Amino acid sequence: MDSTRGGIALVGFDADDTLWKSQDYFDEAQAEFERIVGAYVDLTDAGDRLYAVEKGNLALFGYGVKGMVLSMIEAAVAITEARISAADVHRIVELGKGLLRHPVELLPGVREAVERIAADMPVVLITKGDLFHQEAKVRDSGLSDLFRRIEIVSEKDPRTYARLFAEFGVEPGQFVMVGNSLRSDIAPVLELGGWGVHVPYHTTWAHEAEAQLLHGGERMRSIAGLGQLPMAMQELTALARS
Amino acid sequence: MDSTRGGIALVGFDADDTLWKSQDYFDEAQAEFERIVGAYVDLTDAGDRLYAVEKGNLALFGYGVKGMVLSMIEAAVAITEARISAADVHRIVELGKGLLRHPVELLPGVREAVERIAADMPVVLITKGDLFHQEAKVRDSGLSDLFRRIEIVSEKDPRTYARLFAEFGVEPGQFVMVGNSLRSDIAPVLELGGWGVHVPYHTTWAHEAEAQLLHGGERMRSIAGLGQLPMAMQELTALARS
Repeated sequence: MDSTRGGIALVGFDADDTLWKSQDYFDEAQAEFERIVGAYVDLTDAGDRLYAVEKGNLALFGYGVKGMVLSMIEAAVAITEARISAADVHRIVELGKGLLRHPVELLPGVREAVERIAADMPVVLITKGDLFHQEAKVRDSGLSDLFRRIEIVSEKDPRTYARLFAEFGVEPGQFVMVGNSLRSDIAPVLELGGWGVHVPYHTTWAHEAEAQLLHGGERMRSIAGLGQLPMAMQELTALARS
Repeated sequence: MDSTRGGIALVGFDADDTLWKSQDYFDEAQAEFERIVGAYVDLTDAGDRLYAVEKGNLALFGYGVKGMVLSMIEAAVAITEARISAADVHRIVELGKGLLRHPVELLPGVREAVERIAADMPVVLITKGDLFHQEAKVRDSGLSDLFRRIEIVSEKDPRTYARLFAEFGVEPGQFVMVGNSLRSDIAPVLELGGWGVHVPYHTTWAHEAEAQLLHGGERMRSIAGLGQLPMAMQELTALARS
């Protein structure tokens, strides 16, 4: 296949909530967290207080389940004014283990869409978060054979994408990123001059929802699911060629 | 510089306990953990019980501070028969934050040794564990400009090294790995036909001490500190040339 047709030479895919479910499990874990601390105190803002702790710890913990569980424990101690029992602390640790053990559930049409793009040009997986957990999910997904490279990065910002473009040997204008997060998958790539396909997911972590799309909107398409990816890629490919 | 002289074309360095201190801080955190649970129960095997929990969680958590802290909390609940207070659980979380915040302390002679090798051939950093924390340490170390690449991997086994050799474009016989862990830095590289410089550290995590060197001992040198690295490299270079 001609890997340079239309000027697009490489497609990057986000993983969590783009290829497979993820935020749903985090939402369930957070609901369970609220039930656990709700047995000690009667408050309606436990979720907000947890998010404040998570955000405060982000620069130290990074993304991923293990940091979230440590933030949950810290928040539970604070919310219950140090009254939470050891048994309930243990339930929070087990919540985290449940998330780490959860089988990978592909979203509809993912395998077909990735296969179709991969038949035309190289595809890479670019995902953020915990190295160990992300590697396990890629392995369990059964998709790893389709991806030329799997990049697990600690932050998805313009600096990271610029480094990846250099490693991949592509110009920004030859690259399309497909993902559910405007903040992490789309905005930084458009900012560098690349292309984006936004696949919104029905639930978004508050942190990822904090995004502003300042420029480059004309180099982006939004689709409802990966089944529409080939059509969006055709449109972007035609634009990139013109 | 001639990057192929003597057949050695690339040198890899481990990070924790090879370039900078690490296990000392973990040992201190473990001693503090034993003091915390020691207020509840009178036992001499708290460290062994913690290690058993850590080992049991390794396949789920991987390496790094955050997984260790979660294992500490789980072990503390078990050891105290769920009597540990929320305040003491919080102290364990803070132990972990202290480890993540700890400034990087280079070991003696490291900068000079790495600079000297890097003047002759490309050097790469190959480290295991938590992506976010390892990236922060590399940044803080002031050494990142010396390394051609920084690879953070989830496990240092023959499979990982074979993948890295392919990515780096070197044969195993052209590669020397420098590190403190026989299990992670030396044995898998020797097994593939590469070369090793072992720099034992004065304290070793029980898990890393579980190693057997089955073959390739003649392709390894042991040194007392990185100050002796240039001499060891000369010896291995001469052997690789012969």
